[in-house]
Amino acid sequence: MKHWMSVPSRVPDHAAAAAAAERQDTLTKPPGSLGRLEALAIQLASLQSRKRPRVDKVHIAVFAGDHGVAAEGISAFPQAVTGEMLRNFASGGAAIAVLARELGANLDVVNLGTVNDPGEIEGVRREVIASSTANFRHVPAMADDELDAALNAGVRSVARASADGAELFIGGDMGIGNTTAASALACALLGEKPEILAGPGTGLDKQGVAHKVVVIGDALRTHAGADSVREKLRCLGGFEIAALVGAYVAAAQCGMPVLVDGFITSTAALAAVAMRPDARPWMIFAHRSHERGHGRVLDALQAEPLLDLHMRLGEASGAAVAVPLLRMACTLHGSMATFAEAGVSEA
Amino acid sequence: MKHWMSVPSRVPDHAAAAAAAERQDTLTKPPGSLGRLEALAIQLASLQSRKRPRVDKVHIAVFAGDHGVAAEGISAFPQAVTGEMLRNFASGGAAIAVLARELGANLDVVNLGTVNDPGEIEGVRREVIASSTANFRHVPAMADDELDAALNAGVRSVARASADGAELFIGGDMGIGNTTAASALACALLGEKPEILAGPGTGLDKQGVAHKVVVIGDALRTHAGADSVREKLRCLGGFEIAALVGAYVAAAQCGMPVLVDGFITSTAALAAVAMRPDARPWMIFAHRSHERGHGRVLDALQAEPLLDLHMRLGEASGAAVAVPLLRMACTLHGSMATFAEAGVSEA
Repeated sequence: MKHWMSVPSRVPDHAAAAAAAERQDTLTKPPGSLGRLEALAIQLASLQSRKRPRVDKVHIAVFAGDHGVAAEGISAFPQAVTGEMLRNFASGGAAIAVLARELGANLDVVNLGTVNDPGEIEGVRREVIASSTANFRHVPAMADDELDAALNAGVRSVARASADGAELFIGGDMGIGNTTAASALACALLGEKPEILAGPGTGLDKQGVAHKVVVIGDALRTHAGADSVREKLRCLGGFEIAALVGAYVAAAQCGMPVLVDGFITSTAALAAVAMRPDARPWMIFAHRSHERGHGRVLDALQAEPLLDLHMRLGEASGAAVAVPLLRMACTLHGSMATFAEAGVSEA
Repeated sequence: MKHWMSVPSRVPDHAAAAAAAERQDTLTKPPGSLGRLEALAIQLASLQSRKRPRVDKVHIAVFAGDHGVAAEGISAFPQAVTGEMLRNFASGGAAIAVLARELGANLDVVNLGTVNDPGEIEGVRREVIASSTANFRHVPAMADDELDAALNAGVRSVARASADGAELFIGGDMGIGNTTAASALACALLGEKPEILAGPGTGLDKQGVAHKVVVIGDALRTHAGADSVREKLRCLGGFEIAALVGAYVAAAQCGMPVLVDGFITSTAALAAVAMRPDARPWMIFAHRSHERGHGRVLDALQAEPLLDLHMRLGEASGAAVAVPLLRMACTLHGSMATFAEAGVSEA
């Protein structure tokens, strides 16, 4: 049996892109004057294979999981927060819950395992793999079957999005310690030094960041033998990061556009593209996070995000904030009058 | 009788800003992690004098007027377009009409005078001053009473916004040749050279821009004696630019936040702030236009816009695209749970 990861990504529809580009040039505005909104409409046309794309139905998956490396004191917040935030997602008080409501988006919260286990919660899908990953400073974060379980959790979320008729998939992350995991993984994937990729996360001071760099350096030495992308992800990733990797690959395979959030999710996107380069065209990058390492990861992905608002919250919040830009790009593209329709003279 | 322009701007409510800032720090997120959305909510709280600001009701005024300097061949589009676009605003096919609908905003289109006069149109307010300004390469763009009429058109639009209970005022521009007028005015206000501020506008080629620079240079020499801001605006501005100046001053005077669009509108904002420096706090800058001179004008205003999407359409389109950011900043601020409410541990 072929492994699911070996299934190729869908090929974007270049004819739909060409038709959309042609339409753009007939609309009542100087050609190119809507800037990136024009390119977005054309890209979405190619991904949705229709001349007039829409992103009315948005699926936002937030994957939560704890990190063994939190034991090293690399976060400004206590580990209990991961489990506590699951309740806050479900009860509507978390940033992403507020934004999903505002956008009329479907919020799919997945509990992959937290130390402070909240148990069954209405509005949270319970797919617990373990109470946390292992401490990757010393041992691999995940066993092989744990990695597969996490990847599959992402694949299943995309399947739900697809079944719901979603026109856009957004992935988000929650996990105390996950900027440490993402930084370590990005270092391993890019052959980069920890001091380039490690930042304050939720709010470390200078000394805290210096300690985080040491921990990541140790982890990279411990797992220097991890030579495939999958092994790097298994040794240095986290449940939520692996779920995002699985989701991004699956979205490209089933032909669903993805809006990538910030640092954690972009690192997952980097791993997904390293595994399946043909997944890259399906990704739109929402925002440039204020977290230090994001710029380097974006460069590696040749990604130019839409927004730069100094956000660094995660949870998919930056992607959610960018959704109206996609919607307005589609509405302008679909609803503006042409020069001929409006009787307006051309240049 | 005191001139209306001498009425001071309202003073932003610093207590409301402090209360909003305090609330921000209790919300379930790492402090500062919503970046500029936090600062926006706090600024809007100070401008609306309430702890939980809203921008549900948005007033978008688009002022249209023709420019005598179009006779110099400084635009890629024929002058007839200004009048033609008035119909397109009213019938819903123009970019700003599409966006206003999407946002549920009130669209207030004001015809200040076009060479190609469309006559009475439902949905367009007819406040014709003249069929166009005069050609400022050789003579002042406006007579004194024309300038006053244009300024007052802006003031009246703000009065309508205020009467409608608008929580945000957006001004937009339509006028073939108006990047030439705005560049000339900005040069005069900033003591800057035309080659720094003149760009392709709706789509001039290199040669066209070079000619535009020559025309603006001539105009600056012709009106070198214009030594007050008002005189510079009268000699080098346009009906729609002056209306925007009047609107921005009036909005600050009546305490209504303003979202400034692109190059034309920012130049009007520059003139408004030069006349009434206390108007500056009422301005939020929506986007960085792709038009060459915008960066210089933004710098002079110490403005850091929210978006950079390479847009350069005018019509208030860039401001409209930024409205959801303001709305989401307000909704996050008003609706997120606090650490105490959600039972989430703090750092």
